[in-house]
Amino acid sequence: MKTVNIGVIGFGTVGAGVVECVLQNGDLIAERSGLRPVIATIADLDITTDRGISLPDDVTLTTDASSLLNDPAIDVVVELVGGTTIAKDFVLQALANGKPVVTANKALLAHHGAEIFQAAQGSSSDVYYEASVGGGIPVIKAMREGLVGNRIVEIVGILNGTCNYILTRMEREKADFNDVLAAAQEAGYAETDPSFDVDGIDTAHKATILASLAYGEWFGMDPVHVEGIRNVTLQDIEYATNLGYRIKLLAIIKQEDANVEMRVHPALIPTSSLLGHVSGVFNAVWVEGDTVGGTMYYGRGAGREATASAVVADVMDVGLNLKFGSHHRVPAFRPHCAYSAIVPMADVATRYYLRLQVKDQPGVLALISGVLGQANISIASVTQQETSQASVPMIILTHQARESDLQAALDRMRELEEVVEPPVVIRIEDLG
Amino acid sequence: MKTVNIGVIGFGTVGAGVVECVLQNGDLIAERSGLRPVIATIADLDITTDRGISLPDDVTLTTDASSLLNDPAIDVVVELVGGTTIAKDFVLQALANGKPVVTANKALLAHHGAEIFQAAQGSSSDVYYEASVGGGIPVIKAMREGLVGNRIVEIVGILNGTCNYILTRMEREKADFNDVLAAAQEAGYAETDPSFDVDGIDTAHKATILASLAYGEWFGMDPVHVEGIRNVTLQDIEYATNLGYRIKLLAIIKQEDANVEMRVHPALIPTSSLLGHVSGVFNAVWVEGDTVGGTMYYGRGAGREATASAVVADVMDVGLNLKFGSHHRVPAFRPHCAYSAIVPMADVATRYYLRLQVKDQPGVLALISGVLGQANISIASVTQQETSQASVPMIILTHQARESDLQAALDRMRELEEVVEPPVVIRIEDLG
Repeated sequence: MKTVNIGVIGFGTVGAGVVECVLQNGDLIAERSGLRPVIATIADLDITTDRGISLPDDVTLTTDASSLLNDPAIDVVVELVGGTTIAKDFVLQALANGKPVVTANKALLAHHGAEIFQAAQGSSSDVYYEASVGGGIPVIKAMREGLVGNRIVEIVGILNGTCNYILTRMEREKADFNDVLAAAQEAGYAETDPSFDVDGIDTAHKATILASLAYGEWFGMDPVHVEGIRNVTLQDIEYATNLGYRIKLLAIIKQEDANVEMRVHPALIPTSSLLGHVSGVFNAVWVEGDTVGGTMYYGRGAGREATASAVVADVMDVGLNLKFGSHHRVPAFRPHCAYSAIVPMADVATRYYLRLQVKDQPGVLALISGVLGQANISIASVTQQETSQASVPMIILTHQARESDLQAALDRMRELEEVVEPPVVIRIEDLG
Repeated sequence: MKTVNIGVIGFGTVGAGVVECVLQNGDLIAERSGLRPVIATIADLDITTDRGISLPDDVTLTTDASSLLNDPAIDVVVELVGGTTIAKDFVLQALANGKPVVTANKALLAHHGAEIFQAAQGSSSDVYYEASVGGGIPVIKAMREGLVGNRIVEIVGILNGTCNYILTRMEREKADFNDVLAAAQEAGYAETDPSFDVDGIDTAHKATILASLAYGEWFGMDPVHVEGIRNVTLQDIEYATNLGYRIKLLAIIKQEDANVEMRVHPALIPTSSLLGHVSGVFNAVWVEGDTVGGTMYYGRGAGREATASAVVADVMDVGLNLKFGSHHRVPAFRPHCAYSAIVPMADVATRYYLRLQVKDQPGVLALISGVLGQANISIASVTQQETSQASVPMIILTHQARESDLQAALDRMRELEEVVEPPVVIRIEDLG
């Protein structure tokens, strides 16, 4: 049986998972695929720490990634270094040497995808990246191949396990963001510097990859509007619950006429929706095609084994491409749709949740609804609870409105002495 | 650009959907894939009825399927005739002529998969069948390629839209099975002869396909235990709801040690589970792999457009195989796992919901729990409501027990004069 000889750069958590998966299930994979995956070389700066894996004698361990990249015996390079500097060099060098690349590196693709895919098109090699979005969920393959007959209408994803874990715990334990974040850091579910996750950057990386896959060009990060979850309060989670919603950090990619929206922000989604039931560290991606309608893909969005599952699937795909001389079998990034523009955030239309702390006195509701009405914003529901305080929270759900109109109304409200705290706004996604 | 010339046999609902999808999105598909799909010939006994599609002049319409099968200009045969007789002849003839086949025909594969795949292996052609399970959901591709690195631990599917629609309406409208079935027939969601759907046969066809895909040999229908939903009562749905469960018709495929379970039956699943939220005509498949953990795939399980989406994806896959000479790229049905046996239903262990109509008199609970205890069945919970009748329903949830033990206990209960109606039993799946 033919083999595909794998060179792994980066022997960290995911690298060890990939090696273990191939060692453990290699026979099964070979029988299924007619192609045997073989771990040939592993490169890492640290090759002495015990990863708890007993490597066969014929696996080469090296600290010199370039020897791996230049080794004619290596068929596929698996880049698991992370980051956007040296990882980029490794990927471009592999492609220059005619070696296909499998990567889990969303940051690298989000920032340098155009350059990397151009290099791949210019060589006879492929770049596969299933593990970069949704961990072990085969959503890239589903979009690239399984839904190839569809114009993609909408993608809504819960793509960051750390944020979803924090929001789930806040809701279930009635805890504040900072307390849950600290607990998550202690439990290893959040980094010491959590900014990448909680500020939405990681989700935005994945959003731009999905958008590019759907619409056929590498958008990069510039067009993506990004907000994280630091300002989501327990109070808003509880109001949302009472109104039949949950708050999730979403990546939203939508085709509106000939244009595309790309945004990452917290949003209220119906508790009864499927995405509303995606809790803890799990990820899910809703993909709507013009032919298939709505589909959803769910699973572990990160972690050693789940990510390894996606990497190994890619390795076998590029391995089969080598076996059959079918490189560029699926040229994912030919620009295939002429989208005239990215919709500026100011022009995005959505529904809104507003929480206003207002003076408990007659005429305030009339005042607020007047401000909204002047901005062309129509109210869907208002909740105001009795209290003995001098000011009360007023919860307003709006009908669909333009972001620029909403911002104008907020500016006006900030000037009102009846509104005693800065207004809180969270968008609503009803998930058609 | 290369083309893939498609011959469609069967111009019914799905056939028309496939033709429409290719006509509408052909340019997009070509740009994405580097291969242009072309509807070349359509064969159907009826070529005069208007399908509401304006066919280009160069599409051949014929009543003679064999001319299509023998036409050297046809690259791929799409079999959408249905049934297991003439469809089988068409498929085998296409393969004998070296033409790859795309089919949505689950009955054909369930009954004749072994023969058909042997014919494909013996020719230089492929059989692709994404549309046979889960409609437009790319779950076959996910299992065959996306999870190739995984030993499949468990599959739990809601695979029949008609049954799920009926069960959903029964629950929401507090209606009886027969009333909802009649309404579903009127609305076109159920066939005049509903047996195929409501007796679980269609689900079993899909279950055996998924089991074969997971475990690498064509099992056929014999090993699948099949029960339908005719005996699911509104009463049981309501008791299940109160206990935190929904009743769904499930396909369950599990690896237990070296053996495989395959069964189709109604089951209580937790209302809070993701599968518990799959309602109406939608399908979903839970697939758990040893590496990736649990994943789920959701979408429309039937219908013109969704099925067309899956067929078109397969057409492009076999078309790319032709373009690159990579037929048998993924030889899905090499036996790749040595499973020693199918678990006989008597040895299956699961939890049970029991509804017993018992005399309202002292000692009955002791009697019933004695019978269960003697059969090694341990009780998890008992609910018995007050009533003014002479007999009362007693709802028992058991811990895990063997089917043969449960049947022994039921036999004993049927002899008791204190149990005044035949006991009702529904299995429980807790969905890990």
